[in-house]
Amino acid sequence: MQPLSIDRVSTLIERGPVVLVTTSDGQQDNVMTVSWTMVTGYGGTLAMATGPWNHSYKTLKETRECVVAVPSADLLDAAVTIGTQSGAVCDKFAITKLTRRPSERVRPPGIEECLANIECRVVEFLDRHNIIILEAVAAHAVEGWEAADMLHAVGDGTFLTGGKRLDRRDAMRAKLPPGL
Amino acid sequence: MQPLSIDRVSTLIERGPVVLVTTSDGQQDNVMTVSWTMVTGYGGTLAMATGPWNHSYKTLKETRECVVAVPSADLLDAAVTIGTQSGAVCDKFAITKLTRRPSERVRPPGIEECLANIECRVVEFLDRHNIIILEAVAAHAVEGWEAADMLHAVGDGTFLTGGKRLDRRDAMRAKLPPGL
Repeated sequence: MQPLSIDRVSTLIERGPVVLVTTSDGQQDNVMTVSWTMVTGYGGTLAMATGPWNHSYKTLKETRECVVAVPSADLLDAAVTIGTQSGAVCDKFAITKLTRRPSERVRPPGIEECLANIECRVVEFLDRHNIIILEAVAAHAVEGWEAADMLHAVGDGTFLTGGKRLDRRDAMRAKLPPGL
Repeated sequence: MQPLSIDRVSTLIERGPVVLVTTSDGQQDNVMTVSWTMVTGYGGTLAMATGPWNHSYKTLKETRECVVAVPSADLLDAAVTIGTQSGAVCDKFAITKLTRRPSERVRPPGIEECLANIECRVVEFLDRHNIIILEAVAAHAVEGWEAADMLHAVGDGTFLTGGKRLDRRDAMRAKLPPGL
């Protein structure tokens, strides 16, 4: 991976990809799948919606840092596994066989197999709205990331990528509210 | 268009499409192009990032309502026109020839040519982070919207849809910060 200018971080997130967000409590690294994210400004500020129902949230609250990793489409099943298991009861790096990538500015590792790793600090928790404001402090990306297909979650257990729709409804069932 | 359950609104936004957001100050309807949005919860809560630099923002602040319309891919050039012109100096419905669709619960109109119209009320302005929290109060969608290609802005003047990348860098140039 090569360093990526913080000014280009918005172009990774604006299109709306599924991301994998790593945290570390000093004992264990954890990772969660998030598709509720948005850019909030040029210069690397992002928002993510999550909350206390997520095991990573407690670590994020205590450590105030994470890595937002952007998976390519071929990591769909890892993203679904990460999104449907809990770090409270398993080691998600171990079960997905993803490779930690040491970060430069934060303790949580990036993910070597991803297209990009955005090292972030928490700016603020807006708990009433389940929003966390993040600021990118370093970013790295693989060569050719601009042309790679990312994953877009529809939110009903299907995912869009490169003009195709991939169905993971069965695997996602337990995580979807009724009616979706 | 048919009524769409508020519970399914998240599936329109989670994938990260470009949206067209209409407002009305009672004298004039306006519309802006927004690609900084995210779902913040099941049940129709959304967040959008924008601010006072946007002409629609003043109206939104005063009226606290809007329609989030989701364009299909063939509305790319209308979305670019809307995103690069200002309602302060032109009538964006007139220049794009888009058709107003009367709303049920809010004053701003929807857009007939779009795949879906999500009528929203503002829950809160989080001005420090340029975030507006919205709550969907009604939604309508065309038949077949689930399978339609939406637009995903990369943020550098290019757009992704159905596996294709469409280049509108020249038209977007004036709106992009240096380096993108």
